[in-house]
Amino acid sequence: MNVLILGIDGYLGWPLAQWLAAGGHTVCGVDNFLRRKAVQEMGSISAIPIADWADRASAFEACYSRPITFYETSLLDYERLVAILGEMVPDAIVHLGEIPSAAYSMRDAEHAALTQHNNVIGSLNLLWAMRAACPDAHLLKLGTMGEYGTPNIAIPEGFFEVEYRGRKDILPFPRQAGSIYHLSKVHDSHNALFAAKTWGLRITDVMQGVVYGTRTDRTHPDERFATRLDFDECFGTAINRFVCQAVIDCPLTIYGSGSQTRGFLPLSDSLRCLELALLNPPNRGEYRVFNQFEYTYSISALADVVKQEATALGMPAQIEHLANPRSEREEHFYQPDREHLVRLGYEPHDHLTQVVRGMLEDVRVHRSRIEPYAQNMRPSIQWS
Amino acid sequence: MNVLILGIDGYLGWPLAQWLAAGGHTVCGVDNFLRRKAVQEMGSISAIPIADWADRASAFEACYSRPITFYETSLLDYERLVAILGEMVPDAIVHLGEIPSAAYSMRDAEHAALTQHNNVIGSLNLLWAMRAACPDAHLLKLGTMGEYGTPNIAIPEGFFEVEYRGRKDILPFPRQAGSIYHLSKVHDSHNALFAAKTWGLRITDVMQGVVYGTRTDRTHPDERFATRLDFDECFGTAINRFVCQAVIDCPLTIYGSGSQTRGFLPLSDSLRCLELALLNPPNRGEYRVFNQFEYTYSISALADVVKQEATALGMPAQIEHLANPRSEREEHFYQPDREHLVRLGYEPHDHLTQVVRGMLEDVRVHRSRIEPYAQNMRPSIQWS
Repeated sequence: MNVLILGIDGYLGWPLAQWLAAGGHTVCGVDNFLRRKAVQEMGSISAIPIADWADRASAFEACYSRPITFYETSLLDYERLVAILGEMVPDAIVHLGEIPSAAYSMRDAEHAALTQHNNVIGSLNLLWAMRAACPDAHLLKLGTMGEYGTPNIAIPEGFFEVEYRGRKDILPFPRQAGSIYHLSKVHDSHNALFAAKTWGLRITDVMQGVVYGTRTDRTHPDERFATRLDFDECFGTAINRFVCQAVIDCPLTIYGSGSQTRGFLPLSDSLRCLELALLNPPNRGEYRVFNQFEYTYSISALADVVKQEATALGMPAQIEHLANPRSEREEHFYQPDREHLVRLGYEPHDHLTQVVRGMLEDVRVHRSRIEPYAQNMRPSIQWS
Repeated sequence: MNVLILGIDGYLGWPLAQWLAAGGHTVCGVDNFLRRKAVQEMGSISAIPIADWADRASAFEACYSRPITFYETSLLDYERLVAILGEMVPDAIVHLGEIPSAAYSMRDAEHAALTQHNNVIGSLNLLWAMRAACPDAHLLKLGTMGEYGTPNIAIPEGFFEVEYRGRKDILPFPRQAGSIYHLSKVHDSHNALFAAKTWGLRITDVMQGVVYGTRTDRTHPDERFATRLDFDECFGTAINRFVCQAVIDCPLTIYGSGSQTRGFLPLSDSLRCLELALLNPPNRGEYRVFNQFEYTYSISALADVVKQEATALGMPAQIEHLANPRSEREEHFYQPDREHLVRLGYEPHDHLTQVVRGMLEDVRVHRSRIEPYAQNMRPSIQWS
């Protein structure tokens, strides 16, 4: 299969390229290096050093004995995008080319507009470009479980049957996103559903949980294959932050009570699920939604696991509760479905404790690299 | 009350300014004249001649014995917007400053991106600017009934109680918009709900039906007070098109069967409802939705009324069915609620036949002005 990865230089994009190449697929990619620039803008770095694109590409070509076609462009450049799709005629496009940070989008009006403009208009351009250049390709686009928010009822996969005043319909499940970034993904999902119905595009919309981990079964040991691991306030997830805090002997900081519960999955499971979706494309005009996560955990439970694994590795950790900078319910019902991928054959492979152990091992060797950036892990951006 | 109207030079904005001034309110406004430029870009004109802004402003000042503060700017200029809100400190902001055309947004990728960028990022800037400069002001923003699409169940006002797998919650009603433009309004609504909840803004989100009419009870006879009436493929509504076609002795063109049913309301009812909402603002942090329309009609029923009234005025009209350029259900259930405004005192004042009669009278005197543009009423933009 010929797969085009948008955002190929990112945390998921780079290991996905390796995963798919190892699986026998042809991979090409697009990136504008916005993530590298944004982390730099935050005055931060990846905990694990990453090679620049030229070095990544040569390592890839040497390892998989084939070139990796790459285009440096933003999805906001529509004409360029149409030209690339016309040249590559991909069987599938994995769209990871968005700004992925809630806190970054809540910094100020400028970052809010930047996030929605980049994500919503970039993805809208992609839909039009596919219509023009490769209407038969499968678009595998990344949404987030955060689109749903925390309703007081179960969360189905994208759609649900509603009975209301004696009549029935199957409707999109309402979205209640909790940040300007999460809203950008909600907007993308609405646009994508429209494009599938109106233009007959094939679209899989993945509502993904929070991904964690530094390695996969298919990660090559050469360090040029390493993927980034961010820990700063904007681009670091809670697990990444906990791991880096444990490594540099700082308390693990929980926002609020820590009862907030979300779906999570290891990096290798994320890639395995994306490959499953690619191998089982939807029909023309079909828009399907996969909730993609392994298990749900509360933030406190995650902190406990990191503390326990760090202690076992000789890095005893403390837990500290900070005032929650976000506007979110801390005590809430949470019961999302996760059946569509299971039906395609998804079985959880890796487990939280073991993946966290691997993260701690991979990060501890960079302790002195992270230490000067300890302050970047403290929250400064307030939702309200 | 000090009211800032964004889009004050538009079809609704200009009569609203007069309506509010006649009601004793102070009015100021913002516009970037995008509508004038877009209709020009379509190679078309307003059926009723309209004065330029300078003439409108002098007429206003002469008639209401007070100046009308005006700023020419796009909402995409965030810094300017903050400065204007800081200077005016409005009690309320009526946000009509968006591109309102489904067909325009479906022309091509460029117009799609232009519509969503202008509408979504402009409105997002407005939310941030209100947070910064006037967090206590009431935002009265215009959505559209088209956000809901045509579900097979009744359409409540914004939210509904759902029972699902034995649990209950009150959730936003799912949106299923039928064009890139309608989607931009869906995105706005999601962003606005978030802003109200997170920043404590007061927001009324009006899901408005299609407005028709050329005059209101408070329209001054001086022609500089006339508002625009578009009939081109992009900016003309079905009623406007029928009226102009009848006047120039062309068949009234229905897209598809004409069974498509929507909510409609006369111009004066629209302004009356907006004033009602302004006089009854929501609380801080409250986001409320009003479905704003008078009655629902099928497109065929509207064509029949125009035909009947035109014939009575000596302009016998024919009806012609064209292939539907849009992707939409033609046979569908449609039962939207309209209770919130009624509870505030809304009663329908004007009636379709009488308003259509007035439109025909106002437009027929411009028959020779419209005739050269007959071709602009034929659909060329295809949804799929």
